[in-house]
Amino acid sequence: MIRIGILGYGNLGRGVEAAVKHNPDTQLKAVFTRRDPASLTVKTEGAAVYSADSLGTHKDEIDVLILCGGSATDLPEQTPEAVKYFNVVDSFDTHARVPEHFANVDKAAKETGHIGIISVGWDPGMFSLARLYSNVILTDGNDYTFWGRGVSQGHSDAIRRIDGVKDARQYTVPVPEAVEAVRAGRNPELTTRQKHTRECYVVAEEGADLARIEREIKTMPNYFADYDTTVHFISAEELAKEHAGLPHGGSVIRTGRTGWNNENSHTIEYSLKLDSNPEFTTQVLVAFARAAYRLNQKGESGAKTVFDIPPVLLSAQTPEELRAHLL
Amino acid sequence: MIRIGILGYGNLGRGVEAAVKHNPDTQLKAVFTRRDPASLTVKTEGAAVYSADSLGTHKDEIDVLILCGGSATDLPEQTPEAVKYFNVVDSFDTHARVPEHFANVDKAAKETGHIGIISVGWDPGMFSLARLYSNVILTDGNDYTFWGRGVSQGHSDAIRRIDGVKDARQYTVPVPEAVEAVRAGRNPELTTRQKHTRECYVVAEEGADLARIEREIKTMPNYFADYDTTVHFISAEELAKEHAGLPHGGSVIRTGRTGWNNENSHTIEYSLKLDSNPEFTTQVLVAFARAAYRLNQKGESGAKTVFDIPPVLLSAQTPEELRAHLL
Repeated sequence: MIRIGILGYGNLGRGVEAAVKHNPDTQLKAVFTRRDPASLTVKTEGAAVYSADSLGTHKDEIDVLILCGGSATDLPEQTPEAVKYFNVVDSFDTHARVPEHFANVDKAAKETGHIGIISVGWDPGMFSLARLYSNVILTDGNDYTFWGRGVSQGHSDAIRRIDGVKDARQYTVPVPEAVEAVRAGRNPELTTRQKHTRECYVVAEEGADLARIEREIKTMPNYFADYDTTVHFISAEELAKEHAGLPHGGSVIRTGRTGWNNENSHTIEYSLKLDSNPEFTTQVLVAFARAAYRLNQKGESGAKTVFDIPPVLLSAQTPEELRAHLL
Repeated sequence: MIRIGILGYGNLGRGVEAAVKHNPDTQLKAVFTRRDPASLTVKTEGAAVYSADSLGTHKDEIDVLILCGGSATDLPEQTPEAVKYFNVVDSFDTHARVPEHFANVDKAAKETGHIGIISVGWDPGMFSLARLYSNVILTDGNDYTFWGRGVSQGHSDAIRRIDGVKDARQYTVPVPEAVEAVRAGRNPELTTRQKHTRECYVVAEEGADLARIEREIKTMPNYFADYDTTVHFISAEELAKEHAGLPHGGSVIRTGRTGWNNENSHTIEYSLKLDSNPEFTTQVLVAFARAAYRLNQKGESGAKTVFDIPPVLLSAQTPEELRAHLL
């Protein structure tokens, strides 16, 4: 059994706990939390709850620690620190800062002989793999990534920070005509506005100026100004009833040409339709935790990404079973 | 530059030649043929043409030999023999005989210090990877593979062997209702007949008994008897005009549930739409030839499948470039 630890018990942490239950060769040994450990009850019988400050004390109890913090401030600190004591997997998703994060984790991991797999999940993660595999096959082509229909937590948070907003949920929605044009191999050049629209469901405080809130949302730089955005004001009850979940998904599509004179066209598409973004992400994290453990057992160390992992290491089945049944 | 050789200059061999041209770090050094080498002209300037009997003589001229023979009789003999002299990649696609073929290639490859990657292409190959990745993520779920709409060369050949048939082209067609039920997460139990239909375009000899030919097709065991099959008799001209290509494609879909109480559903789909089955296959073969070369440069040997290859080894880009641009 691979002994799993969790750092951070929010949506992702609870998802890892459920994912561990779904895998026959993993068991949850401990949850590390920044809250008072005595205040936290986890679902897994026999799993300990420890303070996040005590990672080093428990280094012999855990084979792989799965980091469930945020990419903005948590993971840049936590992953290089935690990899001193454990093999780790994180879901660092700030694309622009990947090279820096990789270097920090790599240094600490090599010094202590551990494996740290970063940026695991679906984007980055499975979508990255879809991009890599489709690029090496269709060497001459175009890449497209569409996200949604799904809840963007960053955009929902941005709306919540507006004065007069009590709560909000934002859906990112791919433009159907754009997706169809790509699938048909027409290689469109698409602006930001042509690829996705944004749908906002907003609960306003009583007496708030709805026109101002709508204007502030639609003109918000980076988040909404470059998109066609619709704003719906709804009640707290309707938000709770209709928008409680965290669905997401999307498609990575590559189209390209082959042949001596580029005479043939091909389309590769990888698509996800997810009821629960965090639960899907954590199912991916646990599979890569297995690979981290196995790589370390082979004597390897250092930072890795999904690109570095032989797929066979992700499965609880043996290579012989995989060749016989899935190849 | 990775020096590529081709064994067999049919549809696949010519596809490899074109794929080598599409990759910046590969060059075609030689084509080995069972025909008279003097009778064969290849498109690549400077590439040699040698007899298939002379593999061993040219072992220092080639880094990776790509085997372009058939799975029924060619590859079981050719791959274990060729791997004595070269790193090799083949597209062996007889699923049931993979374990035996793997063992034969592994033994010869380890004895001589080469890498032999078998069963590379799209199924087995990319579809196998799609099945593996989706299985390790959605641990509790169902797998579906649909093929087509596309030309099955095996089924076309089977029709051509019927008395009175001059030529034929057979399309495998997924049943749209079945695909939709799977995509919607309804987890249908599907019989062979419910998953695919078969469309046959047949050129009969003058005066042939069309009713008998149609009956022989529709009742042919293994190939057609378990399917709803339609037979269209057409002229040789129409076959040449409308059915000259070798399009194919299909989808690997896995649906599954996650959560502490299996409360959430997810769908993963990997789809291909290919103008040219052999050209797409050979683009995959050349990417894995790069990986075979690199693994061997690291000192590894033995048989491998797509499951064993870290994706990073498939790309002409550096790991740093991949992390910065595709992750």
